[in-house]
Amino acid sequence: MLRMSGRLFLFAAALAAVGFAGLPAQAEVSAEAQFVFNSFSFLIHGALVMWMAAGFAMLESGLVRTKNTAAICLKNIALYAVAGILYYLIGYSLMYVDVSGYIGSFSLLYNPSGAELDLINADEATPEMITAVTDAGYSSMSDWFFQMVFVATAASIVSGTLAERIKVWPFLIFTVFLTGLIYPIQGAWIWGGGWLSEMGFSDFAGSTVVHSVGGWAALSGAVILGARKGKYSPDGRVNAMPGANLPLATLGTFVLWLGWFGFNGGSQLALGSALDAAAMAIVYVNTNLAAAAGVLAAMALNQILYKKIDLTIALNGAIGGLVAITAGPDLQNHLLSIIVGGIGGFLVVIAVPLLDRLKIDDVVGAISAHLVCGVWGTLAVGIFGGGSIGVQLLGIVAVGAFVLVTSTIFWLALKFTVGIRVSEEDEEMGLDKAELGMEAYPEFGHGAKSF
Amino acid sequence: MLRMSGRLFLFAAALAAVGFAGLPAQAEVSAEAQFVFNSFSFLIHGALVMWMAAGFAMLESGLVRTKNTAAICLKNIALYAVAGILYYLIGYSLMYVDVSGYIGSFSLLYNPSGAELDLINADEATPEMITAVTDAGYSSMSDWFFQMVFVATAASIVSGTLAERIKVWPFLIFTVFLTGLIYPIQGAWIWGGGWLSEMGFSDFAGSTVVHSVGGWAALSGAVILGARKGKYSPDGRVNAMPGANLPLATLGTFVLWLGWFGFNGGSQLALGSALDAAAMAIVYVNTNLAAAAGVLAAMALNQILYKKIDLTIALNGAIGGLVAITAGPDLQNHLLSIIVGGIGGFLVVIAVPLLDRLKIDDVVGAISAHLVCGVWGTLAVGIFGGGSIGVQLLGIVAVGAFVLVTSTIFWLALKFTVGIRVSEEDEEMGLDKAELGMEAYPEFGHGAKSF
Amino acid sequence: MLRMSGRLFLFAAALAAVGFAGLPAQAEVSAEAQFVFNSFSFLIHGALVMWMAAGFAMLESGLVRTKNTAAICLKNIALYAVAGILYYLIGYSLMYVDVSGYIGSFSLLYNPSGAELDLINADEATPEMITAVTDAGYSSMSDWFFQMVFVATAASIVSGTLAERIKVWPFLIFTVFLTGLIYPIQGAWIWGGGWLSEMGFSDFAGSTVVHSVGGWAALSGAVILGARKGKYSPDGRVNAMPGANLPLATLGTFVLWLGWFGFNGGSQLALGSALDAAAMAIVYVNTNLAAAAGVLAAMALNQILYKKIDLTIALNGAIGGLVAITAGPDLQNHLLSIIVGGIGGFLVVIAVPLLDRLKIDDVVGAISAHLVCGVWGTLAVGIFGGGSIGVQLLGIVAVGAFVLVTSTIFWLALKFTVGIRVSEEDEEMGLDKAELGMEAYPEFGHGAKSF
Repeated sequence: MLRMSGRLFLFAAALAAVGFAGLPAQAEVSAEAQFVFNSFSFLIHGALVMWMAAGFAMLESGLVRTKNTAAICLKNIALYAVAGILYYLIGYSLMYVDVSGYIGSFSLLYNPSGAELDLINADEATPEMITAVTDAGYSSMSDWFFQMVFVATAASIVSGTLAERIKVWPFLIFTVFLTGLIYPIQGAWIWGGGWLSEMGFSDFAGSTVVHSVGGWAALSGAVILGARKGKYSPDGRVNAMPGANLPLATLGTFVLWLGWFGFNGGSQLALGSALDAAAMAIVYVNTNLAAAAGVLAAMALNQILYKKIDLTIALNGAIGGLVAITAGPDLQNHLLSIIVGGIGGFLVVIAVPLLDRLKIDDVVGAISAHLVCGVWGTLAVGIFGGGSIGVQLLGIVAVGAFVLVTSTIFWLALKFTVGIRVSEEDEEMGLDKAELGMEAYPEFGHGAKSF
Repeated sequence: MLRMSGRLFLFAAALAAVGFAGLPAQAEVSAEAQFVFNSFSFLIHGALVMWMAAGFAMLESGLVRTKNTAAICLKNIALYAVAGILYYLIGYSLMYVDVSGYIGSFSLLYNPSGAELDLINADEATPEMITAVTDAGYSSMSDWFFQMVFVATAASIVSGTLAERIKVWPFLIFTVFLTGLIYPIQGAWIWGGGWLSEMGFSDFAGSTVVHSVGGWAALSGAVILGARKGKYSPDGRVNAMPGANLPLATLGTFVLWLGWFGFNGGSQLALGSALDAAAMAIVYVNTNLAAAAGVLAAMALNQILYKKIDLTIALNGAIGGLVAITAGPDLQNHLLSIIVGGIGGFLVVIAVPLLDRLKIDDVVGAISAHLVCGVWGTLAVGIFGGGSIGVQLLGIVAVGAFVLVTSTIFWLALKFTVGIRVSEEDEEMGLDKAELGMEAYPEFGHGAKSF
Repeated sequence: MLRMSGRLFLFAAALAAVGFAGLPAQAEVSAEAQFVFNSFSFLIHGALVMWMAAGFAMLESGLVRTKNTAAICLKNIALYAVAGILYYLIGYSLMYVDVSGYIGSFSLLYNPSGAELDLINADEATPEMITAVTDAGYSSMSDWFFQMVFVATAASIVSGTLAERIKVWPFLIFTVFLTGLIYPIQGAWIWGGGWLSEMGFSDFAGSTVVHSVGGWAALSGAVILGARKGKYSPDGRVNAMPGANLPLATLGTFVLWLGWFGFNGGSQLALGSALDAAAMAIVYVNTNLAAAAGVLAAMALNQILYKKIDLTIALNGAIGGLVAITAGPDLQNHLLSIIVGGIGGFLVVIAVPLLDRLKIDDVVGAISAHLVCGVWGTLAVGIFGGGSIGVQLLGIVAVGAFVLVTSTIFWLALKFTVGIRVSEEDEEMGLDKAELGMEAYPEFGHGAKSF
C-alpha cells in the first residue's frame, strides 16, 4: 500500500527514528501496538465505507420511481458483490502490487503476507516472527479490505445515474470492467505509486480516484444509453420524474455522511501515533464542516434562484460538500473546509439543470455531485496550497480522458452485443416487473400507472 | 474539555503517578498510546452519535403524516448542518474555553491546539513536540467533534415536537440560537467547569445538558406555536393523527439505541487505561439494560392500562429508558439501571396523555421521552447515591428556567417578526407541497386527502 | 469467557512468555494496552452486532405484508429487549460460569469482576489493583455485552419465520425460554467449555451456536404453528405473498452484512497483538468474500433455474453466504471462503422451494438461510481441515436434537395454555389491527384488502 502522502511518509520515518533514539521508553507507542492501531483503523473505517453501499442503495431507491425500485436495490447489492470479488481476483494487484509507473501486477488473487501467515500458523511465535509482521506497519488484509470498499463506492455512483432504463446483467458486466480494470489502473497512477503520484498529484481520499471516476463512467453511460423515455419533451421541456420515497433518500444521505468519516478519516492510513490521531481528528472535523456547508449553501442558493427549499437539493448539497472536501480534508484550516464544501453545494445547484439542458439524464444527480464536485475538490487542493494547480489539472484531465475512453469502449461493446437498454415497453412497465417479475411495493398506490 | 468527573480526574492523576513510579515498564499504557486511545474513542463514539441525527430523522419521518414528511426530512438534515457550523463558529468556545462560572469565551472559530499544529507542520518531529501534544491527553479536534454531535442531538429533539406546522426557515433560525447560545451557555455551567459543576451537579452524558434542554426548548415552542389544526376538538377529544410509516420509526429507534452507545460510552471521555475500558463497558451494559427495561415496562404498563400493545409506545419506551440512564450509566449496579430505565418507560406511558390533556401537541412524544425522562434520570443520580438530590434538583430547575426563558424570548421574537407557523391552508395542504413544492411519496395512496 | 480456540490460547500464552523474556521492551503491547484493545474490540464489535437487530427488523418488515408490519416491528424491538434482560438474569451464567460439561451456573444476575470494581471504587489505584484487572485480558462486562448481542441474533431469526400469524405475547414468552435457557445451555457445550468443546467441535462465530439454533427453534415453531391461511392451496399450489416494502428488506440485508463484521470479526475475541489484528483482518475479508459469493451464486442459479433475477433471492444469498462462513472465517484461504459462501447462496435457492413443498411456511426464508447454511458452514469447517467431520456432524446433530426437543416442548406448552396463533379473522384482518389496533402505513394504498 503506497497510498501515503510524501509528507506523512517522511514523518513516519522521522518518528520511528526519534522513537528508538530520543524518547523516554514509556512515552511512545510500541511497534506492535502501532500495528494493531493501524490495522484496526483500516477495519473499522473500512466497515464504515462498506456502509456507504447501503447509503447509495437507499438514496437511489428513494429517488427512482416505484416501478424501478426493486431493480435498483438489486443492482446495488450485486455491484457491491461484484466489486469485492473482482478486486480480490485482479483489481488490488493491478493497483498496488509492483506498480511500474502505469500499471501494477496481473497476478491473480491477493493473499495475506507470508510473514503474517507464518505467525498465524506457527506452533510457537518467535520474536523474529512478530517483528517481521509488525515491520509492515499494518496487516495486509486490513489494507485490502479498506481499499476494496473504495472501489465499490466508485461502482455505486454509476448505478444511480443510469437507473430506470439499463438492463441488470449488462450493468453488472460493466461493473466487472470498472472494478477489475478501469478503477485499479488509474488508481495505480495516483495511489499505487504510479506516474501521477510521482509528479506530485494530491488526492487524499479520492475526489478524483473514486468520485470523479465513478462520475466519468456514469457520464459516458448516460450519453450512450440515452435519456429516459419522456424525460425531455421535443419542445425542450424537462419533465420531472420525482423520486418515490424521499425519507429513504434522506436516510441514504445520512448513511453516506456517516460512512464518509470512514472514507476520509481512514484515509489517514495510520493511527499509531499522536500525529496520526490528531491529523485524523482534523480530517473528521473538516469532513463534517464541508458537508454541513454544502447543505446550507445548496439550500440558500436554491432559495435565491428558485424561491423555494428543495429536499433533494439539500441532500445532494451534503454529498457535493463531502465529495469536494475528499481530496484535501487533511489541510488544517477549518474555515477553508467550509468554503470548499459550500462551493460544492453551490455547484450541485448549478450543475443539475445544466446537465438537463444538455439532455444528459442523470436520475439521482450523481454526475453533479460526484464528478463536478470531485473535479472542484481536486482543483481546490491546488488552489489552497496542498499541491500544484497544474499537476492537479493534469491529473483531472488524464484520469477523465482515460475513464471516458475506456468506459465508452466497454459501454459500446456491451451495447452492440448483449444490449444495454430495456425495450420501450419494458421501460414503460418498469424494470421491476420486466426484468425481475416483482414489485417493490406491491400494496402501495398505483405508481406504475400514473407515470 | 472539562467534562470529567472529579473522581475520574483524581484517578487519572493517580494512575499517571503510579505509572511512572511503581509499575513495571511493560504493564502500563504509554502516554502516546493513551492519546491515541482517547482520541479514537472520541472519533468513533462521535460518529455513532452523529448517526443519531439519522435516527431522529427516521423516527420523525415515520411519525408524521405523509404530507409533512419531506419537510421533516429537510429540517433534520439542515439542523444537523446548522448545529455543526454554529458550534464551530461560537458554541464550543462559549461552552469550554475559559469558562468563568457562567459563560466561556466569545472567541470566533475553534482550531486545533498549537502543539498539534506544530507537530503536524514540522519537517521533523522532536520528542518535545510529541510530549507537548500527548500531555493534553487527547486530540483537541477529536474532543470538538464529540461535543459537536451532542449539540446536534439537542436540536433534533425540538424538530419532532414541532413538526407538521412550523415553517422551515424560522425553525432553522431558532436552531441557530439553540446551538450557538442556549445550549453552550448551560453546557458551560455543567460540563465546562461552571457554577453547577462546582456545586457538584452530576450529569454523566447529558440527561439534563442535552435531553432536557432539547425538551424544554421543544415545550416552549409547542406552547407558543399551538397545536395542529384538528388535534384537539372543542369537546375535549384528542384526535389521533397516526404516523405514516411505522417501520421507519422503528428503524429510527434502533439507530438511536445504537448511537447511544457512542453517546454514553464515549462520555467516559477516555479509553487509555484498564480503568477506563472497564468503566466504559459498564456504561455500555447499563445503557442497554435501561433501554431494554424501558421497552418492556412501557409495553407492560400500556397493556395493563389500555389492554393493548402499542408499537410507538414501545419505541418511546426504549428512548425513555435511554434518556433516563444517561445521567448515570457509570453507576455500577446493573439492577439499578434496569429500574431507572424501566421507570423511564413507565413515565412515557403516563406523560403522553398528560400532555394531551394540557393541549400541548407533541407530534412524536419528544417532551415525554426527553424532558420528563431527562428530569427523572438526573434526579435518579441523586436518589441512588451518585450526587446530592438537592444539587441535582437545583440544576434541573436552573437549566429548565434558563432554557424556558431564553427559548420563549427567541420563539416570540421569531413569531412577531418572520412568523413561525404556516397558514391554515398550508397546514391543511401539508408542508411538503406548501413549503417545498414536492411530495415525499408521490406515488403512494392519497394520504394528504384523507386527513 | 472460554470462547477461545485452543490454538489461539496457546499462542496467547506463548506471546506472553515471549513478551516478558525475549522481545525488546518497546516492541510489544503492554498488558494494560492489550486489556484496552481487547475490551474495546468487544464493545465496538458488539455494537455492530446489536445493529443486526435493526437489520432483522428491516428485513422482516420489508418481507411481510402491510397488515402485519407494525407487529413484526414490535416483535423485533421487544425480543431484543427480552434477550438482553434474560441473558443478564440467568443466560450468561448458564453459558459461561463454571460450566461443568453440560451446563453452567444457575446464579442470578451477572456483575463486573471484583477486581474491576475494586479498581473503579478505589480512592487510589495501586499497581496491584491494575495488574489484577489486566490479568483477565479484557473487561468482564465488555465480554458480557458481546455475548449478549449474540443471543439476540438467535432470537431475531425466529421472529421472521413465524411472522403474520403468531401472537405477540406468546412469541415473547418463547423468547424468554430461548434466550434464558435453550441458547445458553447449548452455548455452554460449545463456547462455555462444555462437552462438545472438549471433543474439539469448532464453531468460530456461531454457524451452529447462533444461526442453526435460531433456525431449529423457528422450524419447530413453524411446524406447530402451521402455515399462513391461503399459503398452500389444497391442489398443492404455493401462493406467493409478496413482501410489502423491498427497499426496507434490502436495507436490512445491508445492515446484517455490516453487522456481521462485528459478529465474525469480534469473535476473534482479542485485538491486543499483531497476531490478533492480522487474524481479525482475515476474518473481515473472508466474511465479505463469502457474502459477495453468496449474492452472485444465488442470482446465477436462480437465473439458470428460473430464467429470472430475483431480489429477495439475492438478499437471502448474501445472508446464506454470511451464515455459511461464520463457522470458519479464520481459515486463511480466501478462495475457500468464496466457495463456502457461494455454496451457501446455492443452498438458499434450493431450500426455499423445498420447504414450500413440505408446507413449512417460512415467511422470510430464515430456515433456509440460517439453519441450512448454518449446518453447511459447520460441516465445511470439517471438510476443509478446520476440525473433524465426525465431531462437526455430532455437534450439528446434538444441538439440533436438543433445540428441536426443547423448543417443541415450549411451543406446545404455549399452544395448549395461552395459545400461539391468532384467530382466522384476526389473521385475515392483519395482526396490526387485531393485536396492536394500529396500521403501519395508514395512508398508503389498500393493502390489507387486496390479499
